[in-house]
Amino acid sequence: MNQSVITQLKSHRSIRKFTTQPIADSLLRELVAAGQSAATSSNLQGVTVIRVNNRKTRQALATLAGGQAYIEQAAEFLVFCADLHRAGWCCNGTMVEGMTEHFIIATVDVALFAQNVVVAAESVGLGICYIGALRNDPSKVSELLALPENVYPVFGLCLGYPDQDPQCKPRLPLEAVLMDDHYHEVDEALVAQYDQAMQAYYQQRTAGKVNRDWSDEMSALLSKESRPHMREFLAKKGFTMR
Amino acid sequence: MNQSVITQLKSHRSIRKFTTQPIADSLLRELVAAGQSAATSSNLQGVTVIRVNNRKTRQALATLAGGQAYIEQAAEFLVFCADLHRAGWCCNGTMVEGMTEHFIIATVDVALFAQNVVVAAESVGLGICYIGALRNDPSKVSELLALPENVYPVFGLCLGYPDQDPQCKPRLPLEAVLMDDHYHEVDEALVAQYDQAMQAYYQQRTAGKVNRDWSDEMSALLSKESRPHMREFLAKKGFTMR
Repeated sequence: MNQSVITQLKSHRSIRKFTTQPIADSLLRELVAAGQSAATSSNLQGVTVIRVNNRKTRQALATLAGGQAYIEQAAEFLVFCADLHRAGWCCNGTMVEGMTEHFIIATVDVALFAQNVVVAAESVGLGICYIGALRNDPSKVSELLALPENVYPVFGLCLGYPDQDPQCKPRLPLEAVLMDDHYHEVDEALVAQYDQAMQAYYQQRTAGKVNRDWSDEMSALLSKESRPHMREFLAKKGFTMR
Repeated sequence: MNQSVITQLKSHRSIRKFTTQPIADSLLRELVAAGQSAATSSNLQGVTVIRVNNRKTRQALATLAGGQAYIEQAAEFLVFCADLHRAGWCCNGTMVEGMTEHFIIATVDVALFAQNVVVAAESVGLGICYIGALRNDPSKVSELLALPENVYPVFGLCLGYPDQDPQCKPRLPLEAVLMDDHYHEVDEALVAQYDQAMQAYYQQRTAGKVNRDWSDEMSALLSKESRPHMREFLAKKGFTMR
């Protein structure tokens, strides 16, 4: 039927530089409607999308995300929130709060929804960049957007017409990710092969300035207490993870 | 460029009855490769996909998921796992375990990846059904698939050629989900409107046998301790949520 969709998906790369062209309001609504059509666990629809128009809020978000200017420059910036509050409202106060399972289904709902928005956006020539760094200061984000209890900001999303054309970032060999029937340890040779590909990618992207591979990246990511405030922040918001 | 992708996304519905037609191995690999191309937080690629071929394992999974026969009947059944083990291996034992943040990024990675697989599959005429009910007994799933520490099964996915053509399930009005700049309480009238749409949907789908609306569904979902074993299961697997 549509081999070109697979080609589109395989061509994804994050865009961090956008033209000033706005996104038509009707198109933005179409993209979010496409997001709504994604599967949702038990029909929870545990997603709220905050469209940030206010310039000062954009600026504040860009700053707390570590100075990512494209949050201010993108035509649209959406904050994807996991939302148990709306559905809980329908229970008239009988919602059992703090269940880990509910946290998981709302978080998964958000990601499925957002990825549909992304695929829809890229299909009409838009570029996107997910912004996980909103979790640098989720309390501040919640304050800026007036998020109630049982709602938390999972990530942001920049949307706009691309003003750059970066190459795709290489991925792990398929064999390292797809397994038959049982989990098996990753083949060292596959990681070595991928480390080499990533090193070449960074060398090319930075004109030789960055000498880094995947194993280096993973050490940097996992060998530290990443965003150690998340647990307490979530608990304060009602996600006590019981 | 490609309005038809948005049309495709908006046409999604779960398929629970499949023909016996197999999925070509090369196509399955293409679908998973499309999944790999989704965005991934800090390039973690925290996803492992277990393709379940073994009939006994399929049967055991169908049983623990509450007797969902299509898990056995679908041409392919994939289990999507959040995986910090592989990346942790690259850190030579220096990974800081149990961070809530790492749990979130791996879980989000899985959902973005899986939704790409779904969109790719539906673009070539396949039908899908997510199976969250693997979390009914995640310990048993982990045992069947030999999942190590720092890996957990987020959900399953049935894939096959559809042998039914159900209608799309209505979604909340866009206005209940998309908000400008600040969170606002949902408009009661919008929920009432949606409750009516869902009631009509169930009446039609069950020839008048089921009389239920969204508010009923949400009460049933949230007013009980859903999968209360999740917290302890995750902690045992290394996801201590600190």
